[in-house]
Amino acid sequence: MIQITVIQIDNYGPWTVTPKPRRESDLQALQSRLYSDLNLLFGAHKGLVFYTRFDNLIAITNGIDLITHKRIQENIRNRYPFTISMVIASGETPYEAQKLATETLQEYGSAKDENRREVLDVANELIDGYVQIAHIDINNITSYTDTLSTYDNYLNIKRVQLLLMEELLKHEALLFFVGGDNFMSPCNGMNEEDFLDIFDKVYKKLNFHLKAGIGVGKTAEDASNLADIGLEKIRAREVNKSVCFLKQDFIENPTFKRKICGVE
Amino acid sequence: MIQITVIQIDNYGPWTVTPKPRRESDLQALQSRLYSDLNLLFGAHKGLVFYTRFDNLIAITNGIDLITHKRIQENIRNRYPFTISMVIASGETPYEAQKLATETLQEYGSAKDENRREVLDVANELIDGYVQIAHIDINNITSYTDTLSTYDNYLNIKRVQLLLMEELLKHEALLFFVGGDNFMSPCNGMNEEDFLDIFDKVYKKLNFHLKAGIGVGKTAEDASNLADIGLEKIRAREVNKSVCFLKQDFIENPTFKRKICGVE
Amino acid sequence: MIQITVIQIDNYGPWTVTPKPRRESDLQALQSRLYSDLNLLFGAHKGLVFYTRFDNLIAITNGIDLITHKRIQENIRNRYPFTISMVIASGETPYEAQKLATETLQEYGSAKDENRREVLDVANELIDGYVQIAHIDINNITSYTDTLSTYDNYLNIKRVQLLLMEELLKHEALLFFVGGDNFMSPCNGMNEEDFLDIFDKVYKKLNFHLKAGIGVGKTAEDASNLADIGLEKIRAREVNKSVCFLKQDFIENPTFKRKICGVE
Amino acid sequence: MIQITVIQIDNYGPWTVTPKPRRESDLQALQSRLYSDLNLLFGAHKGLVFYTRFDNLIAITNGIDLITHKRIQENIRNRYPFTISMVIASGETPYEAQKLATETLQEYGSAKDENRREVLDVANELIDGYVQIAHIDINNITSYTDTLSTYDNYLNIKRVQLLLMEELLKHEALLFFVGGDNFMSPCNGMNEEDFLDIFDKVYKKLNFHLKAGIGVGKTAEDASNLADIGLEKIRAREVNKSVCFLKQDFIENPTFKRKICGVE
Ligand SMILES: Nc1nc2c(ncn2[C@@H]2O[C@H](COP(=O)(O)OP(=O)(O)OP(=O)(O)O)[C@@H](O)[C@H]2O)c(=O)[nH]1
Ligand SMILES: Nc1nc2c(ncn2[C@@H]2O[C@H](COP(=O)(O)OP(=O)(O)OP(=O)(O)O)[C@@H](O)[C@H]2O)c(=O)[nH]1
Ligand SMILES: Nc1nc2c(ncn2[C@@H]2O[C@H](COP(=O)(O)OP(=O)(O)OP(=O)(O)O)[C@@H](O)[C@H]2O)c(=O)[nH]1
Ligand SMILES: Nc1nc2c(ncn2[C@@H]2O[C@H](COP(=O)(O)OP(=O)(O)OP(=O)(O)O)[C@@H](O)[C@H]2O)c(=O)[nH]1
Ligand SMILES: [Ca+2]
Ligand SMILES: [Ca+2]
Ligand SMILES: [Ca+2]
Ligand SMILES: [Ca+2]
Repeated sequence: MIQITVIQIDNYGPWTVTPKPRRESDLQALQSRLYSDLNLLFGAHKGLVFYTRFDNLIAITNGIDLITHKRIQENIRNRYPFTISMVIASGETPYEAQKLATETLQEYGSAKDENRREVLDVANELIDGYVQIAHIDINNITSYTDTLSTYDNYLNIKRVQLLLMEELLKHEALLFFVGGDNFMSPCNGMNEEDFLDIFDKVYKKLNFHLKAGIGVGKTAEDASNLADIGLEKIRAREVNKSVCFLKQDFIENPTFKRKICGVE
Repeated sequence: MIQITVIQIDNYGPWTVTPKPRRESDLQALQSRLYSDLNLLFGAHKGLVFYTRFDNLIAITNGIDLITHKRIQENIRNRYPFTISMVIASGETPYEAQKLATETLQEYGSAKDENRREVLDVANELIDGYVQIAHIDINNITSYTDTLSTYDNYLNIKRVQLLLMEELLKHEALLFFVGGDNFMSPCNGMNEEDFLDIFDKVYKKLNFHLKAGIGVGKTAEDASNLADIGLEKIRAREVNKSVCFLKQDFIENPTFKRKICGVE
Repeated sequence: MIQITVIQIDNYGPWTVTPKPRRESDLQALQSRLYSDLNLLFGAHKGLVFYTRFDNLIAITNGIDLITHKRIQENIRNRYPFTISMVIASGETPYEAQKLATETLQEYGSAKDENRREVLDVANELIDGYVQIAHIDINNITSYTDTLSTYDNYLNIKRVQLLLMEELLKHEALLFFVGGDNFMSPCNGMNEEDFLDIFDKVYKKLNFHLKAGIGVGKTAEDASNLADIGLEKIRAREVNKSVCFLKQDFIENPTFKRKICGVE
Repeated sequence: MIQITVIQIDNYGPWTVTPKPRRESDLQALQSRLYSDLNLLFGAHKGLVFYTRFDNLIAITNGIDLITHKRIQENIRNRYPFTISMVIASGETPYEAQKLATETLQEYGSAKDENRREVLDVANELIDGYVQIAHIDINNITSYTDTLSTYDNYLNIKRVQLLLMEELLKHEALLFFVGGDNFMSPCNGMNEEDFLDIFDKVYKKLNFHLKAGIGVGKTAEDASNLADIGLEKIRAREVNKSVCFLKQDFIENPTFKRKICGVE
């Protein structure tokens, strides 16, 4: 079970244009700083936040309890011109968890309901589960960065992103862009072969080679750190394929007794 | 002529994994804060920055001279664990300008060249041109936000984004996501009909209705403010179509003597 | 026992002037953001940081373990152009604790030693103690803010600050300015009468009336929240003197069986 | 003539305790980030801000016009939970300028007036004057940092600060702490001898040797950069006294035809 928190700025659309449209560079500074702060605040407790739409964010929050969420909600209220609502949910897959969380949030009212403020709720029980994250990276993007135009590179990456999103969703996994040529996918339940298949499709359609470190841990940070180590193992050719699966020791679950990075 | 600045973090890829991979929540906080700061610093001079890949950013910088760029470059050097390179270029279209800027940057060495630091150059002359920006918005996204799951909404917006990117590129216009259901497109040279056609395609393929305020001004801020006003005019039904074109008085150019928001 | 962490930027003096003196507005932005971040990061674990000299900071860290300190140290390394060293110590009084921490830090080398980086140590054991904080406030400063010049008001507050520092040090308590007309004093071991005496002296010398909420709790945040409530009780005249002492229930220690805000 | 802007958070005191006292670590993060941002925003136009009381700040703003102030005011409104008021004034001395600015601000209502929001005014004309700044530094503070306790060092610096404030005020100069063992004094009208006398007093009373680079320029940044160079000249023993006066070429004024750093 992965634990997901859906975060939504309260009544944000109307605020951006009241009394008249606010300067766009200010809004960009505001939104990206909110995202930065949420990563510091959830990161302090080993969570990880993705900016998603900037007004609706998705966080992996295994191990982070309700009271900590409340403290983060207060922190934002104390320093920003708006408030945020948050609902936590757990699910077998990340897609399921975020869906459950969204449904509970929606019960409290519209994103544009001016009376709905600082919702904080748990859709189902907070369960000690695990997080599986794939850190996906394009091979040798620098050869493109150094030859194509900045925008063409960017467009290529967006194409890869959308294809990955469509393919991963079939496995109820999510995908987020984390900068450069890097993506992070919360992907509880998926295995190496699933990724190899998807990478194959991406290569056939878009001609980019992908690799992924996949980490399994108690928290988003643990999983993400292991995923990073996996990526480095691939780069260092310590494994001879484009996916490297690493898991934290704690997990007894026999379904994890799979080959770890090609070594039994 | 629009003036574009291409910004690249120097040798960033290697830094992220030296001596070992850095915590992802820290990298997210770092990158989004860089973006926030660049918007404050360029925004102080009426520029506008888009995060693009986070390690390669694109800014509209009409009216911002080289010495101001240099001061911004120093500011980042003084407060961040890395440095940035910047090249400025002008072009008839945004695509052309960013391409020229990238080419000049590439001549100085690779994005991963550890000896290439703080490039600052101008690809061609700094010319007093104008900026045309379309602020594109999805109609009534809130009805989806309040019913679909957060991730499904996000995926929809990514689909709209990629389609818009592909279509706008045919006009050498760029497109950036700015949060929520909003996109900004630097689009010098395009006209209302171009946008109406594209919106038609988006509706046919993806079933979303789009609208756009389009502003023309001396600086990114002027253009973007006018675009925002255009959007509000559409929302207020002061114009009876989904595109509203507004230009700053200063422009004498007869090619701009087109219908402004449906009124001759 | 109060737990104090002494934080020092490594080799900061030389950095500020290498290769030539850095722009002062950038340094101010850098230092205050470091302070801001440290408060978010320690605050996430109920600690509280004071800016002190900006290059040497003092934090109250009861309940925050070594591994959390290490994560904060990494976070700064990952986002700033410098690193920080930290030593934790506990003491009967805040003065004693910070002294012990400093001594241990000094053993590792000079603040300007370019080879000393990211010291992280504990001077003595981490003990479950308690924090006592006085939140001291000047009565009706607004009457001065609205009549004297900004600088004269500022000077007055600096005079009050220095006198408070000198007097509190006799009790081995520390004092930090927290903005406006507010001061925070970690003051384990002091009692109401001690404060009333000091406030008397301040009034006689500088003609300002002071009040203080004093909180005792397991963490800096608990203590500081109680201190704030104390201040509000005084403002609401729920207590009829200028000091209000509140303690968290947990404390069995008979030495705390004193009158709470004038009520037995 | 130096141009000073007095900045005040509107109705901040009541906000900090509504509906109940806000977490102190959040307030510290909020206030220091406001300060950081104001330095970035004014710094983008060569101004310099001092945190002063955090709720009342003083900025040197020569060369920065009213419309730029308005843009900064909007920027804060767009990103913070409060608004700020600002009044600009010029004076022969910094003290006089800030006094004038404060008086004009006070005419608009109390710092706690909930109906007074976003005052923006100019007390007298905006004149092209010059800025004189002394960057004052304690000699070899590191020998103390490495031997005394952190708090004792801090207290020493506060003692030096208050003595400097009292002495400089006799010359209508202001003094602000900028971190470490450094102070900045806007000091239009003062000369080298004035500083040597004051440093003598500080040495006699507190046993610290001080040095100062003094810069004169069109803007705060120009003056502050020159002051920094002056400090470095003293450190490098290029001048044989503890004050080094440097001025930007532009100034024709014969009163500046004084010895520059001991060289005619
Ligand atoms: N968010 C995030 N971005 C990263 C990380 N590592 C690299 N990047 C980004 O990816 C970009 C490209 O770096 P690399 O992936 O090292 O470059 P490459 O040329 O593709 O090299 P290989 O992946 O080794 O083939 C960098 O500029 C960063 O923006 C990471 O750990 N996290
Ligand atoms: N960057 C940016 N985002 C905006 C702006 N205005 C709105 N948004 C974003 O768009 C989201 C949706 O708001 P709206 O577009 O007002 O909502 P809607 O339901 O689509 O309403 P209509 O567009 O009026 O049909 C908000 O939550 C914001 O994230 C803006 O000016 N700039
Ligand atoms: N750091 C911090 N500063 C505060 C707090 N409350 C007030 N302040 C500051 O203190 C300033 C003055 O506010 P007050 O103390 O409410 O004003 P006052 O006129 O002295 O009113 P009384 O104290 O009620 O007599 C504000 O502008 C803030 O800067 C707080 O909880 N923390
Ligand atoms: N704001 C600011 N602070 C500085 C600057 N230079 C140094 N500092 C601070 O001053 C502290 C002490 O550094 P130094 O003054 O170089 O050390 P010192 O031992 O006194 O050395 P000398 O001044 O050369 O005798 C540093 O830790 C910084 O906090 C500067 O340009 N601006
Ligand atoms: Ca790569
Ligand atoms: Ca919309
Ligand atoms: Ca008060
Ligand atoms: Ca010094």
